[in-house]
Amino acid sequence: MKRIKLTVAYDGTDYCGWQVQPNGVTIEEILNREISGLTGEEIRVIGASRTDSGVHALGNVAVFDTKCSIPAERFAYALNRRMPEDIVIVRSEQVADDWHPRYQDVITKTYEYHIYNASVPNPMKRRTSTFVSFPLDIDQMRKGASYLIGEHDFVSFCNVRTNTSDTVRTVYDIMIDQNGEDICIRITGNGFLYNMVRIIVGTLIRVGRGFYTPERVKEILEAGERTEAGVTAPPQGLVLVEIRYGNENENE
Amino acid sequence: MKRIKLTVAYDGTDYCGWQVQPNGVTIEEILNREISGLTGEEIRVIGASRTDSGVHALGNVAVFDTKCSIPAERFAYALNRRMPEDIVIVRSEQVADDWHPRYQDVITKTYEYHIYNASVPNPMKRRTSTFVSFPLDIDQMRKGASYLIGEHDFVSFCNVRTNTSDTVRTVYDIMIDQNGEDICIRITGNGFLYNMVRIIVGTLIRVGRGFYTPERVKEILEAGERTEAGVTAPPQGLVLVEIRYGNENENE
Repeated sequence: MKRIKLTVAYDGTDYCGWQVQPNGVTIEEILNREISGLTGEEIRVIGASRTDSGVHALGNVAVFDTKCSIPAERFAYALNRRMPEDIVIVRSEQVADDWHPRYQDVITKTYEYHIYNASVPNPMKRRTSTFVSFPLDIDQMRKGASYLIGEHDFVSFCNVRTNTSDTVRTVYDIMIDQNGEDICIRITGNGFLYNMVRIIVGTLIRVGRGFYTPERVKEILEAGERTEAGVTAPPQGLVLVEIRYGNENENE
Repeated sequence: MKRIKLTVAYDGTDYCGWQVQPNGVTIEEILNREISGLTGEEIRVIGASRTDSGVHALGNVAVFDTKCSIPAERFAYALNRRMPEDIVIVRSEQVADDWHPRYQDVITKTYEYHIYNASVPNPMKRRTSTFVSFPLDIDQMRKGASYLIGEHDFVSFCNVRTNTSDTVRTVYDIMIDQNGEDICIRITGNGFLYNMVRIIVGTLIRVGRGFYTPERVKEILEAGERTEAGVTAPPQGLVLVEIRYGNENENE
């Protein structure tokens, strides 16, 4: 028996998120089905991040245990031949038998949020970015974002589904890049509460529009109440880019 | 009666190209249906470029004649409320009654071809770029492209559907930009033969792989035979970016 870690990329547009559920097809369900089909075992993967419906990933992580003789590194290739084209196994590798994608030490988690900021929507970007038609003041957004850097109680920036009492997280960096009509907000932290990135983005968009001063972000953070922050930005702009673990390659 | 010019953007992935045909839904068909629905007239648009199945546009052009009292500039807004989200009317304006999107003087037509060049495909880019897994030598591609600039007989770079005997076109510029894994080939000319951009790209990819020397592009051009050039690159990487006409705003 060996434990295989998969790094998984997907266009989440046509899925009801990661986690298996009765209402529609999920990423986890496809993985379970195709890995089971490949190995002949009944596989249930364990995922790192249960992304919401419509959210994308370039580097979500899942593990499963198998007796299959396929070399760990070859699973990516073998699985990609079976996968629908909107899910890609970026990498497969063996990890320790007790390695767990959620309980393992996470060093950093990185998300990007993509905004298409123009007067008319771009149909080629509708699945992977959020259209914002009013002008955004990027410098003000950067200033607002600066208040979130560091270790804080982010309870104002999480939605109720969170089943954790510990709402303290550390945000290491928020970079906001503008390239023509494309705006990318890249957030790195040691972990994120439920909807935290999307609420941060919704709040920063309000700053960019001039509805909130940058200092308002600091006040929201200090208020400790979800009702203070901006709306949750829509899912299609969000991408889980990378999860970095400590002692990642201990089996190598 | 007035003639309205529409600038049309679309994600062509889920359409059987521009032109109405029995086998599937086309962009032209959706435009006819929705403009007819809006005006109460039976509208048949005339398009500038009959893009192939899977090809995208940011600036294709269509015209139609209407007695409808909606101001010309408001058609974009009114139509976008009816359109599926993968087709967007970027702009609407009145043009002269005899203005024709194909017979009018075209100053320039610009296409982009997007390549995602990495070891593993990116599912978020699969609809709007072509995945190339082997390394590409961009400098060699640029050198090869340089032989195409200017007025040439491009018969070696067109597929048989072309029903024109005049295969001379002028290519003004080919820019090849690389940004990480994303490669964009931007081609501007006074017009393009059937599949010409995709055959140029297919040929340049061969140069980038090292299968062809850059000088081979010159030889292919001079050979005057379609069989000499590389394969036609797949449609999903191609975008019709802009068509610029002479005397465009004669009615304003």
